[in-house]
Amino acid sequence: MKTLIKNIDIITMDADKNRYPGGAILYEGDTIEYVGPFSDLEDKIKEDNRQVKVIDGRGMLALPGFINAHTHIPMTAFRGYADNMALWEWLTQKIWPMEAKLKPGDCYWLSLLGAAEMIMAGVTTFSDMYMFTGDIARAAADSGMRAVISRAMVGPDDTYGQRLKDVEELAEWQNKAEGRITMMIAPHAVYTCSPDFLVTCRKLAEEYKTGIHIHLSETAKEVEDCLKEHGKTPVKHLYDLGYFDLPVTAAHCVHLTDEDMDLMARHDVRVAHCPSSNMKLASGFAPVDRMLKRGITVSLGTDGAASNNNLSILKEMSVAALIAKGYTGDPNALPAHKVVEMATASGAKALMLEDKTGSLEAGKKADIQLIDTSGPHLFPKEDPLVHLVYSGYSGDVDTLVINGRVVMQGRKLTTIDLGLVYKEVEKIVNRLRN
Amino acid sequence: MKTLIKNIDIITMDADKNRYPGGAILYEGDTIEYVGPFSDLEDKIKEDNRQVKVIDGRGMLALPGFINAHTHIPMTAFRGYADNMALWEWLTQKIWPMEAKLKPGDCYWLSLLGAAEMIMAGVTTFSDMYMFTGDIARAAADSGMRAVISRAMVGPDDTYGQRLKDVEELAEWQNKAEGRITMMIAPHAVYTCSPDFLVTCRKLAEEYKTGIHIHLSETAKEVEDCLKEHGKTPVKHLYDLGYFDLPVTAAHCVHLTDEDMDLMARHDVRVAHCPSSNMKLASGFAPVDRMLKRGITVSLGTDGAASNNNLSILKEMSVAALIAKGYTGDPNALPAHKVVEMATASGAKALMLEDKTGSLEAGKKADIQLIDTSGPHLFPKEDPLVHLVYSGYSGDVDTLVINGRVVMQGRKLTTIDLGLVYKEVEKIVNRLRN
Repeated sequence: MKTLIKNIDIITMDADKNRYPGGAILYEGDTIEYVGPFSDLEDKIKEDNRQVKVIDGRGMLALPGFINAHTHIPMTAFRGYADNMALWEWLTQKIWPMEAKLKPGDCYWLSLLGAAEMIMAGVTTFSDMYMFTGDIARAAADSGMRAVISRAMVGPDDTYGQRLKDVEELAEWQNKAEGRITMMIAPHAVYTCSPDFLVTCRKLAEEYKTGIHIHLSETAKEVEDCLKEHGKTPVKHLYDLGYFDLPVTAAHCVHLTDEDMDLMARHDVRVAHCPSSNMKLASGFAPVDRMLKRGITVSLGTDGAASNNNLSILKEMSVAALIAKGYTGDPNALPAHKVVEMATASGAKALMLEDKTGSLEAGKKADIQLIDTSGPHLFPKEDPLVHLVYSGYSGDVDTLVINGRVVMQGRKLTTIDLGLVYKEVEKIVNRLRN
Repeated sequence: MKTLIKNIDIITMDADKNRYPGGAILYEGDTIEYVGPFSDLEDKIKEDNRQVKVIDGRGMLALPGFINAHTHIPMTAFRGYADNMALWEWLTQKIWPMEAKLKPGDCYWLSLLGAAEMIMAGVTTFSDMYMFTGDIARAAADSGMRAVISRAMVGPDDTYGQRLKDVEELAEWQNKAEGRITMMIAPHAVYTCSPDFLVTCRKLAEEYKTGIHIHLSETAKEVEDCLKEHGKTPVKHLYDLGYFDLPVTAAHCVHLTDEDMDLMARHDVRVAHCPSSNMKLASGFAPVDRMLKRGITVSLGTDGAASNNNLSILKEMSVAALIAKGYTGDPNALPAHKVVEMATASGAKALMLEDKTGSLEAGKKADIQLIDTSGPHLFPKEDPLVHLVYSGYSGDVDTLVINGRVVMQGRKLTTIDLGLVYKEVEKIVNRLRN
């Protein structure tokens, strides 16, 4: 069965930044066959008319689905629970004690809640780092989302056996769920893993032929402590442990030296910039502009709902674009176009999914969002990307296709029973808080 | 005719910060008669049942309408038109040349577009500074919005006659449109008005028994130039010209000394904080936390759509709350509750409307928004104000009542024909750009 989206304004976010006003997208199964002007497709469509499902995209803008390159999806449980705290206090006093009460199965429902939220905000792919990763994979499978899932590794301690088992379970998911699930290895951070344990994790990534997902240089304290303990910055520390021979996605990267950034650029370390979380926990402003100038791939992440408190990449785009200008004092810093690239093509690259998603072009998976551009906040018509970044909101996303499957149409979810999810999440949250 | 909103979670934003889960709001004509638990009202309602229109608020949160304390509503014409520029360049090279082409009548349609956008974002009141103020007043009257309108004054030059005529026309609007329209006097800024002309404006405000609306200490350049020319900061300059004997609403206030803030606190100068515009034009971060610590009333403004690029106070709330923490390095800076107060009660105070709006309580005008809290981004249930500030978006506002009139219900506008507005705005914009 083929699906044709027609009369649609398309911004491909491909390498040539092609745009097709009033164009057409044709996909079959999970794969895009054609993106371009409808005229080039018309004859072909007439031939096999009966086998083509048509979506009328009039008044809408097609973009590749957004990519949330760093989150902890089950932390929807803690949304708004512990406000106004700095990172370390927040983790130790609020989050970790509640997390200790999580049981198998909980993270399935908590992840479905996060998936519903992300789908309704145009996100097609998320990269997660948490525990109970089998539950998260199951939620990704059932919601229809594309996911890169990582089991958070902390150590050394006596939990390593369980963590390793989770990694093995994740590896098996890679052949299931229509190939929508991949994995990375996730040593939590330099302040929660010993150097030897970091090496153990690196070897695990080598063994599974995958990349590393890690929190890096998030707070001034992390950097100070690392300097004190190891005599080098967290970035240099990872480099010396052989990390940069592998693909690395580093979340946050707020406190970097010029040498750090040079090293990261040279070794193609990809960054997941999480501006809302960095502000909310008062961690600071990441030097996005200077990273981009060095050619570093910078993607966007929401972080968990506990520290954001939402999972909308569109909101992150707006915050990133605004604070980059305020922080640098340069109104040209991080233009809207660049921010959309961070949320799409760069996100795909950060997650080693650039062959599958991040742009609308033939041969890639059909991860497509249709954005309703008819609201007064998006009028008069101007560059749609500028309007989207500075004025758009999640409610503007009308339809979402992931891997060729319509997971939302007219703001209605097709894969998730939200009422049931609310009921189950409420039970879990009541248990965690009592 | 009375209207009863029942089964509604209410946060009054009154002085006691009363909350009524599953409560009731009763209003007659333009005035609120009752806010509280439904039980206290039940018998009274049964008596005159037939004369009461009922709105079921189940699943929704009632808040006072948001107040946009600083905007230039007709600048919707320039939304997204001139991105990535600093304030002075942006004004002189892009905005002023286009504004010179505006004709009488244009600002009516441009303001209706802005009104539609604000209504769909829960804004019930806006404070404007622009030209063609008669057109703006007409749009406020027709859209049903509450408005404080100011004619921007620049001088001395030969346009003073026209400006004064506009002020006289505005004064007449105060008795029309069910009393929804008031006025202030708006010397544009210390860098566009001579000291003598500033005094002329002050006298005008005295004559009309109203307050002052002015741009103040927006950029470092403005402060430097003022120091060079007058040997004092813009705040001290206004003080010395007798401004602080009147109610003053000062927009921006990004670059303030401690002495400036002390002076403003002592004389109850009210601030309209416009964080998105200050970031987008790279003007800087306003010291909101330090202003609030001194007891200064700080409200929120979007500024014009040309430099934001939207008119949503909800978005401004989120940006304000996040950057205050990032800027100060203190995760306790500007908690969500305070931000909501800025967007409601403090906004009313900034506009000298605290007797009419800014909170839900008997005797005030019925300026009420009903927010749909059923989305996954607002789950699990927590403090609704925290969820609203960090996760809410304009699309969550379901119903808006202004001065007792339903101007939006179920996201449908009742006072504005959006199709017609788009058609007229398009014609105007095409003319301005060619």
